Amino acid sequence: MTLTETIENYLSHIPYPTQPEGLYEPIGYVLSMGGKRLRPTLLLLSYSLFKDDIDTALPLAIGLETYHNHTLLHDDLMDNADVRRGKPTVHKKWDANTAVLSGDAMLIMAFRHFIEARCEGKEQILELFANTALEICEGQQYDVNFERRTDVTESEYMEMIRLKTSVLLACAAKAGALAAGASPEDAGTLYRFAEKMGLAFQVQDDWLDVYGDPKVFGKKIGGDILCGKKTYLLINALNRADAAEKQRLLALLADGDMPAAEKIAAVTQIYDALGISPLTLQTIDNLYKEALAALDALSLPAERVAPLRQYAGSLLGRKS
Amino acid sequence: MTLTETIENYLSHIPYPTQPEGLYEPIGYVLSMGGKRLRPTLLLLSYSLFKDDIDTALPLAIGLETYHNHTLLHDDLMDNADVRRGKPTVHKKWDANTAVLSGDAMLIMAFRHFIEARCEGKEQILELFANTALEICEGQQYDVNFERRTDVTESEYMEMIRLKTSVLLACAAKAGALAAGASPEDAGTLYRFAEKMGLAFQVQDDWLDVYGDPKVFGKKIGGDILCGKKTYLLINALNRADAAEKQRLLALLADGDMPAAEKIAAVTQIYDALGISPLTLQTIDNLYKEALAALDALSLPAERVAPLRQYAGSLLGRKS
Repeated sequence: MTLTETIENYLSHIPYPTQPEGLYEPIGYVLSMGGKRLRPTLLLLSYSLFKDDIDTALPLAIGLETYHNHTLLHDDLMDNADVRRGKPTVHKKWDANTAVLSGDAMLIMAFRHFIEARCEGKEQILELFANTALEICEGQQYDVNFERRTDVTESEYMEMIRLKTSVLLACAAKAGALAAGASPEDAGTLYRFAEKMGLAFQVQDDWLDVYGDPKVFGKKIGGDILCGKKTYLLINALNRADAAEKQRLLALLADGDMPAAEKIAAVTQIYDALGISPLTLQTIDNLYKEALAALDALSLPAERVAPLRQYAGSLLGRKS
Repeated sequence: MTLTETIENYLSHIPYPTQPEGLYEPIGYVLSMGGKRLRPTLLLLSYSLFKDDIDTALPLAIGLETYHNHTLLHDDLMDNADVRRGKPTVHKKWDANTAVLSGDAMLIMAFRHFIEARCEGKEQILELFANTALEICEGQQYDVNFERRTDVTESEYMEMIRLKTSVLLACAAKAGALAAGASPEDAGTLYRFAEKMGLAFQVQDDWLDVYGDPKVFGKKIGGDILCGKKTYLLINALNRADAAEKQRLLALLADGDMPAAEKIAAVTQIYDALGISPLTLQTIDNLYKEALAALDALSLPAERVAPLRQYAGSLLGRKS
């Protein structure tokens, strides 16, 4: 089995209770929606750098995926998003209270998967996971705060996406290493690698929303522009624009009457004029290279690390 | 210091981060609201049956209190309650999204307190806590389900309040014992004691809502009647009533135009006619006696257990 198959297989065989249905049915719905299973895959890849019995690390991997889906469920409720992975979100299919309570239960289940794991470094992994989950709440709060601001700096933005996205990937990579009994140095190296990868991945997500191929991206283009989201692109456009351009960009984003396609085209034109696309691609490339360079510090033969490097490349659409 | 002072002192000295303010300020607000601190007190009393260094158990006690306040925060959001302990609830003072996210952070902090504790039986305590928290979600879901039903049986109701209220008290008593290295038998005994106490306490809460002295109860009388809550009293009234009385009771509860005082008086009159008050007091007394009787199985001298018996009595307003 591939790692993804192993994860899907384990996920689909968890003996969840069936009663009360109103609590557990939405959880099964969310966890069976699929997705890239990026966090559990990264955890297992990291574990398998040091040890081959990946079943030992599976409860941790599933805990991370359950936790990640808890954040999606509650974030969708807070954003009032209608659709996730082409299906109605939980608060749309059921209601807001169901989203709150089933989301809470998923957070508890995530901890329970971690608690039930029988692996090395358990205490440290539990601490890492709890601290990471709290950082992610902080990232979500900063993201909310940024909605009301037009003066977000690039470094504030990078810190927000580090908290909201990167630390969970970093936690996955480090927890996998600790569970396999890796040295603190190697575990720290993997944390730093995945932290940079997470930044690259998120900035790329921002870029794809404007410049991606909708067939490959899997979402409609321009969604972030339409909801005025403070992305890497918008923040840099606002910072690079002169006073007049900045006013025009903010007015465009605030215009509720302009047809969607027209607004996306107009904002993209400003991005193009300001050179935002090459700037963003350069940032992604720098972060990706920093991530790979971090891996050089691992106390492992290069061929052992090759699958992880390859996975990192595939996440960023690199053929290397 | 009394146990309550020890708990308040510890709670007020936790070094919470201050940023982002939108995440952490509501948490400080909720945790400083006071309350009986029933769960941490019970945990520490249980611990001190076996060991005197209660500081060792304080992180667990604070974890339980943080967890309990997380459930109040999210329950108030789901019930759309305006006031808690005489102050505006978090979703009223801030907004619904703040209540979701700060509530999530409190759940994570609760686990972190447990994880950080340096005591005996850690693994088992963590499992107990995670399982208990999930049972409480189930209890909350059953409570929601009961709102739409008029045929809830007494045993269904007792199981709901066991899940929603009792298991957390039982977890407190058992975790305190395990942390002090008590035998599985003694830990199990304390679980059963607190489980019965929790049932007695909740049924008494139902009784006080109708028959309590508002000066002592601290809440307005009749709140459950006005919101049509399925309490021990209402469920038994519906089960004891003949068809005509049942129709009248349901019509009364559904009447949105009747003045509050009139509705409370009319429902109370039906309860009186059906002998609901003595029935309820008998149930409370039976549960209280079963709880105390369970304690006889402890492998401890009676004088060591006296403070716990006394605390149980004080919770139910017994002078003994």
